[in-house]
Amino acid sequence: MTPSYSLHPDRLFPSDPGTRAIARRLHQAVDSLPIVSPHGHTDPRWFAENQTFANPAQLFITSDHYLLRMLYSQGVRLEDLGVSAQTGTSAPVSPQEVWRLFAKHYYLFRGTPSRYWVDHALVEVLDIRTRLTLENADEIYEAIQEKLQSPEFLPRALYERFSIEVLATTDDALDDLKYHQQIRESEWLGRVIPTFRPDRLLDPEFSNFTESLTRLGELTGEDTYRWQGYLEALRKRREFFQKLGATATDHGPLSAFTANLSLTECETLLSAALRGSLSAEQAECFRGQMLTEMAKMSVDDGLVMQIHPGSYRNHNAGVYQTFGWDKGADIPLKMEFTRALKPLLDLVGNDPRLRIILFTLDETTYSRELAPLAGHYPCLRLGPPWWFHDSVEGMKRYKTQVIETTGFYNTAGFNDDTRAFLSLRARHDMARRIDCSILAEMVADHRLPEEEALEIAIDLSGPLARRVYRF
Amino acid sequence: MTPSYSLHPDRLFPSDPGTRAIARRLHQAVDSLPIVSPHGHTDPRWFAENQTFANPAQLFITSDHYLLRMLYSQGVRLEDLGVSAQTGTSAPVSPQEVWRLFAKHYYLFRGTPSRYWVDHALVEVLDIRTRLTLENADEIYEAIQEKLQSPEFLPRALYERFSIEVLATTDDALDDLKYHQQIRESEWLGRVIPTFRPDRLLDPEFSNFTESLTRLGELTGEDTYRWQGYLEALRKRREFFQKLGATATDHGPLSAFTANLSLTECETLLSAALRGSLSAEQAECFRGQMLTEMAKMSVDDGLVMQIHPGSYRNHNAGVYQTFGWDKGADIPLKMEFTRALKPLLDLVGNDPRLRIILFTLDETTYSRELAPLAGHYPCLRLGPPWWFHDSVEGMKRYKTQVIETTGFYNTAGFNDDTRAFLSLRARHDMARRIDCSILAEMVADHRLPEEEALEIAIDLSGPLARRVYRF
Amino acid sequence: MTPSYSLHPDRLFPSDPGTRAIARRLHQAVDSLPIVSPHGHTDPRWFAENQTFANPAQLFITSDHYLLRMLYSQGVRLEDLGVSAQTGTSAPVSPQEVWRLFAKHYYLFRGTPSRYWVDHALVEVLDIRTRLTLENADEIYEAIQEKLQSPEFLPRALYERFSIEVLATTDDALDDLKYHQQIRESEWLGRVIPTFRPDRLLDPEFSNFTESLTRLGELTGEDTYRWQGYLEALRKRREFFQKLGATATDHGPLSAFTANLSLTECETLLSAALRGSLSAEQAECFRGQMLTEMAKMSVDDGLVMQIHPGSYRNHNAGVYQTFGWDKGADIPLKMEFTRALKPLLDLVGNDPRLRIILFTLDETTYSRELAPLAGHYPCLRLGPPWWFHDSVEGMKRYKTQVIETTGFYNTAGFNDDTRAFLSLRARHDMARRIDCSILAEMVADHRLPEEEALEIAIDLSGPLARRVYRF
Repeated sequence: MTPSYSLHPDRLFPSDPGTRAIARRLHQAVDSLPIVSPHGHTDPRWFAENQTFANPAQLFITSDHYLLRMLYSQGVRLEDLGVSAQTGTSAPVSPQEVWRLFAKHYYLFRGTPSRYWVDHALVEVLDIRTRLTLENADEIYEAIQEKLQSPEFLPRALYERFSIEVLATTDDALDDLKYHQQIRESEWLGRVIPTFRPDRLLDPEFSNFTESLTRLGELTGEDTYRWQGYLEALRKRREFFQKLGATATDHGPLSAFTANLSLTECETLLSAALRGSLSAEQAECFRGQMLTEMAKMSVDDGLVMQIHPGSYRNHNAGVYQTFGWDKGADIPLKMEFTRALKPLLDLVGNDPRLRIILFTLDETTYSRELAPLAGHYPCLRLGPPWWFHDSVEGMKRYKTQVIETTGFYNTAGFNDDTRAFLSLRARHDMARRIDCSILAEMVADHRLPEEEALEIAIDLSGPLARRVYRF
Repeated sequence: MTPSYSLHPDRLFPSDPGTRAIARRLHQAVDSLPIVSPHGHTDPRWFAENQTFANPAQLFITSDHYLLRMLYSQGVRLEDLGVSAQTGTSAPVSPQEVWRLFAKHYYLFRGTPSRYWVDHALVEVLDIRTRLTLENADEIYEAIQEKLQSPEFLPRALYERFSIEVLATTDDALDDLKYHQQIRESEWLGRVIPTFRPDRLLDPEFSNFTESLTRLGELTGEDTYRWQGYLEALRKRREFFQKLGATATDHGPLSAFTANLSLTECETLLSAALRGSLSAEQAECFRGQMLTEMAKMSVDDGLVMQIHPGSYRNHNAGVYQTFGWDKGADIPLKMEFTRALKPLLDLVGNDPRLRIILFTLDETTYSRELAPLAGHYPCLRLGPPWWFHDSVEGMKRYKTQVIETTGFYNTAGFNDDTRAFLSLRARHDMARRIDCSILAEMVADHRLPEEEALEIAIDLSGPLARRVYRF
Repeated sequence: MTPSYSLHPDRLFPSDPGTRAIARRLHQAVDSLPIVSPHGHTDPRWFAENQTFANPAQLFITSDHYLLRMLYSQGVRLEDLGVSAQTGTSAPVSPQEVWRLFAKHYYLFRGTPSRYWVDHALVEVLDIRTRLTLENADEIYEAIQEKLQSPEFLPRALYERFSIEVLATTDDALDDLKYHQQIRESEWLGRVIPTFRPDRLLDPEFSNFTESLTRLGELTGEDTYRWQGYLEALRKRREFFQKLGATATDHGPLSAFTANLSLTECETLLSAALRGSLSAEQAECFRGQMLTEMAKMSVDDGLVMQIHPGSYRNHNAGVYQTFGWDKGADIPLKMEFTRALKPLLDLVGNDPRLRIILFTLDETTYSRELAPLAGHYPCLRLGPPWWFHDSVEGMKRYKTQVIETTGFYNTAGFNDDTRAFLSLRARHDMARRIDCSILAEMVADHRLPEEEALEIAIDLSGPLARRVYRF
């Protein structure tokens, strides 16, 4: 491996030297703060069993839908990336081949956050000091593979090395949380907690809705075919999650629509849902009512409610049929919040016990709806820029469009939302650098004294998330 | 009071030293230009009676819905900010307590325009040289209170100190304008003029619509229950406003929808409106027709028409019920102009006598609809970034999204839109600084010679508003 | 002519000196690369006949709807700009008068791309070294007029001077392409190729739809009143265009809606279309189905498909009635792609032979829909910022909103889209400078090593367009 490759200490800072110096000072104060990770998709099993990761291709590529999307968009076949067709007919590929294919197409990621994250993981976490190319792909593969075998690269060791203070996973509402149990019962001191994600129990258009409710009934001993039993069962599952440390719920509906229906209407909708006879409009009502029910339960049990609507999941019919969920074919939709949230807010929006964190993929809602809403309703906070917008420019757009209306203190700090554990720290690194850059610009043009900017930089690097998520 | 706090002379200028120097030069030429304030919400009574302002809390906080929103969003109760519940049951709070509560939460405004405005008013207008904190809140309160008693802080003295050339208030179409009369009859030479705001006469869904029309009939001697009488009465009120100096009307409909209906349809809609039997769709038609009627009247009488649609007023049902209007719970909605304005434009859009100024809270319409429309139709001009977007980043977004398509000369310069008289100059200060910064960047990257940038900077600082509003 | 006026060598580069130096280095490598112009509206007749251009007014103003719009928006009458009313009643104006009127209002274009393009054409192409003012308008007019008579300003000479490698025009699907024939048969080596634009054959709401289909039948010998004959006729016209060098089709529907209907439904729609009895909704279905048919044909014949929906053509009823098409009154509409394209994509979206280039005037779709779609579907690429957004800030918004999700390599490089041949190079000049500026910023903040930025700068300056358009 020839030229030495590194991460520049001033990366992502403003280019004007005076402003950059301010950013550097702010960043110095936050760079080593512990990581609060209130929302993500790492696997609790990793921390429960603490086993060696399989191989570089599996760890970096096959499980990362950001990488799959881009490679697929340029004609790389998913089979060749190690993604197995559900039909089981695909020929197996070796992880080395997958890695080589990735290296060959690594130029596609120039200017994208994936490039930043992967580079960060390679250089910072794995100490690979060469830029990945097709030529050195095999060599780098072997170097990574070797490291992964060492104890420093076991999940718990990485958790500690990353200075993680708390890590929330996302867990199906019907999950038995056995890995979370196992973590709690172990002598390990890491704090890995579950998050209650009940999408498939709240959306009658989800596949196998009736089966899910049946299972919910079995788990809770409630008659989930009746409205009150159904709600009671959900309450019990929330309680179960809370006992294992959960402080939040997580909701990914198609829209932000909420409803406040009469008991009779609810009963009727549930019956129709179980019969599979809801119209599209009724299904939307059902989902909207259930968001409101979740808010009401949050008032009671204090679980923080996360709502991130507006992703058209599995948009590519062909890819979905062959490869199933989460293969990079989720495409955002236009969103509306002002009218959509009103029924819920009319009911519980002024209750001091309620906390709702809103996310969006439709950036037009930042300044038009989300910032004004969160800048008024005491229950609302804004989640960080989500998914495609978890990026340098995405974060800048978010901050410049949101802060002037809602202030820093109606945001929820940062979430890494990561599935790729090795790049978890890279994501916080990017967020902290961008926050410091934005604050440096406010100091440079005298919108803020540096001492106040410093307080904000620190708040955004953990304390705000800690408070908003009630850790 | 310990550390000296001031406003930096280079505030809001670009951080690159070369570009900053250009901005400074441009700003020097406009900093002391007189203020043209064609749209705002100051109280004409202040200038008519020229009385001492009550106290700092009332002047700065209780009447400022920007501040109320943010404080409420972080759990501060409106009662504790001196906002009286309509039921009259709230315990009175002292203005000192309100001020203290504000000081305690002043950190919430970091990075928001409110911070800039309040700081500017404290430092520049009131000569308070310490940053407001909970610790010095009482001391600062007393210092302000003392100043407010002096003759230099009477409304007329401030008007002169602010170098205001003309100030338009916003006045209900049924208002008797007695304070405006009083100002004109006084020996004072300040130019304070009314603006004709007829929302409640044009929107059948406004509370007490029928009563408003009855009152309109009484004032004008017209049969306002008939279409022609209703229009004639509106014409007479416009004439009354014009006699007292008005040059503009002001319209805040829910959408930009316009219509061009037959006389029979209009008669029918009015009858139904008075009976309270309009459907939501018919009410929209009524409002749309009335925008077109206002445009037709503007063709005749030359009043400049301001349209700023898309605010969902009093979104928070609970706050509205307890505290009434204007308590910071107005939330923007998505807007559409291209199709919505076509009926009106088809009718009078090419008439050289017509002038319409468009505003929006939905920034997506800047580059998509408003700039192309104003860059073609001779009657259209674009108002400045409105409300939440009257901010550093908001102004930058507006300029960078609008100018390339519509040019500087299809905009209407700046409006302060202020209710908070003490920060009126702060708002023009911010706008001029941002204009100079944007122009400096165009000079720095050689898009404009500096001498042309200078001409534009001057035009934007008053002359353009003066021409567009026909002062 | 007094002061010397020139184009600054560092124009449009970032103002920070360090970043500017990087931009300068990148730009040096691309400045003289040949121009690939895959989409535009120059007239093939110019290159076929190679005649002298008429006069400065005709060349610069009367045919440029960007200029007409702005002048009209400020009260200049179209008649006075040499635009003839269709009724033929307008008094003729001399080109000198038109030019003088333009010079008088040239200040309106400050800060717009038109200013950049016209200045570039005057200084770089015509070597006019004075800034255009009313005072020197006549002098400059004469100077241009004189140059236009010289052989260096004939169309073919300019083509060569501009280093054009390939230039695609846009041609009606029924055009006989005789000028393209003539160019091919001449000894001239320039590569000017047609693009297949069938809008009026695919949209039943286009004026004279039935006549167009009749003509299509005559040209192809197919029964275009039957579905299969209609499709076959379109196939034949595509083949005819391909024989004359076309590599692409071009589609400007009102929306991005696509459909996948049964044969019977298609037959029925066509019959109703020919009878003129389609509802608005059915017309939309028809257009949507035809986009899908075009995609299917592209799979077969390899023509690259360009879709740029969402312009409300001839929005100004009065101007349209008097002056006809393309008079600057086209106003964008909100767009939706995620749901709209699904029927087409479900059918052929994963086919490696298909290539679709998407354009939009609704910038909200950049990050929300277009970048995620093109960042997944192998058939999709994103066209450059279109029309109003072909500007300094427009390009920056495009790049910062699109690249992080879709990467540089899912874009199609640059199109000049020009009608104004003299400013063709100006448009590429602007695009290359902005690309280099954006890349320089990525280098300056260490998102990209400079050697990679250089590769991208080169790719964006021609090679990418060459590949994507299959030249």
